[in-house]
Amino acid sequence: MRFDILSANSRILESSLKNGLVSRAVEKDLIEFQIHDLRDYAEGKYRQIDDLPYGGGTGMILKPEPIFRCAEKLKSEIPYDDIIFFSPQGLKLDQKMLNEFSLKKNLMLVCGHYKGTDERVISRLVTKEISIGDYVLSCGDIAAFVFIDAVTRLIPGVLGDGESAITDSFQVHTGFDYPQYTRPEVFGKLKVPEILLSGDHKKIEIWREKKARAKYNRINKLNKKNNRNRQGEL
Amino acid sequence: MRFDILSANSRILESSLKNGLVSRAVEKDLIEFQIHDLRDYAEGKYRQIDDLPYGGGTGMILKPEPIFRCAEKLKSEIPYDDIIFFSPQGLKLDQKMLNEFSLKKNLMLVCGHYKGTDERVISRLVTKEISIGDYVLSCGDIAAFVFIDAVTRLIPGVLGDGESAITDSFQVHTGFDYPQYTRPEVFGKLKVPEILLSGDHKKIEIWREKKARAKYNRINKLNKKNNRNRQGEL
Repeated sequence: MRFDILSANSRILESSLKNGLVSRAVEKDLIEFQIHDLRDYAEGKYRQIDDLPYGGGTGMILKPEPIFRCAEKLKSEIPYDDIIFFSPQGLKLDQKMLNEFSLKKNLMLVCGHYKGTDERVISRLVTKEISIGDYVLSCGDIAAFVFIDAVTRLIPGVLGDGESAITDSFQVHTGFDYPQYTRPEVFGKLKVPEILLSGDHKKIEIWREKKARAKYNRINKLNKKNNRNRQGEL
Repeated sequence: MRFDILSANSRILESSLKNGLVSRAVEKDLIEFQIHDLRDYAEGKYRQIDDLPYGGGTGMILKPEPIFRCAEKLKSEIPYDDIIFFSPQGLKLDQKMLNEFSLKKNLMLVCGHYKGTDERVISRLVTKEISIGDYVLSCGDIAAFVFIDAVTRLIPGVLGDGESAITDSFQVHTGFDYPQYTRPEVFGKLKVPEILLSGDHKKIEIWREKKARAKYNRINKLNKKNNRNRQGEL
């Protein structure tokens, strides 16, 4: 899988992606990525990539030309499955969407910055606008980092057999992981639940399912309550 | 504000946090952070930080001792407002929570890895378990990066006057930003909406509010539909 990233802050991903899972997947030739600095596609002595908003307001808006110029060049070379833009106004990312993205071949990721990006980019170039959550980041590059990591670990061969993504949270019944314990069996006054030492795999499975579901119900209730409170404030 | 980060993959944040907004906030002395490598708190020749899960299953689980040892040492030196653990099983992060966190002084962030972290860490050490979204990452460090960036930009003095966080998405009426446009006025066949050139600030405000609300309604409906579909699958 190939990621082409259009960025106004190319150093963030250049450093973030050089460690951990993503760099191992690159070494294994399972993914590749290229970061494109929008300034390289800007014009004039100052290579300006942003400008003031029409209609007034604070902050600088990313201009359309450098983004279109870079994207058109890439599109003339590679067929993209999707051109993704990250913003809090996008469709909420979840594991099911990630499973679908993990089957794609070429993805272009457009990372916004400053107070915004010219709407013509979003309405005419981008095929999917995605939000990683209901919060604001300093730039889309950090959302792209989340997206690339989460997609990459689903690509066959990236994770070792022992850590297959199949049993992940959001892949099993409740959508939640069960509580995990490892050695030591007794830590201070805290013991590993006896059932996990019983060797009774059927009972362990039932216990885990119950624990996962209980936590899902508890957290889901709290999230719904928070959501209602937020909507009441709008 | 101070962040202490307990990590099994300390290189990820060491490189990720050295650019962009976070590094500028550090330079301005508005935040500081320290990354603690859990291996420095592990025992034995191999400084083992993970082990097999009790009760069977795939993947390695982070052991409790190195995490408690590091946390207890830090707690003896600094009073922490919260000890945060990142996982998909946590309370969903949103802008309101971030506003509250931005008023804190000292936060400890515990980053999990592999298939999980010993539950005794989550139930006995951690004060808040937080999820940045309904998806699985290779490690909590990437969630911590999102969290630190999103909190940092809310700290007074981090953003310039012209890009104040007050007018962010999720801070205004609809929770969504309105569409933004900058120069050129005509790009190919794509024109900036005439109202934004009118100079009529009252009308512009109404137009923006309408556009933001329309997008919010559209995306909110799609998110709710996706959510219902996911829940039906559980």
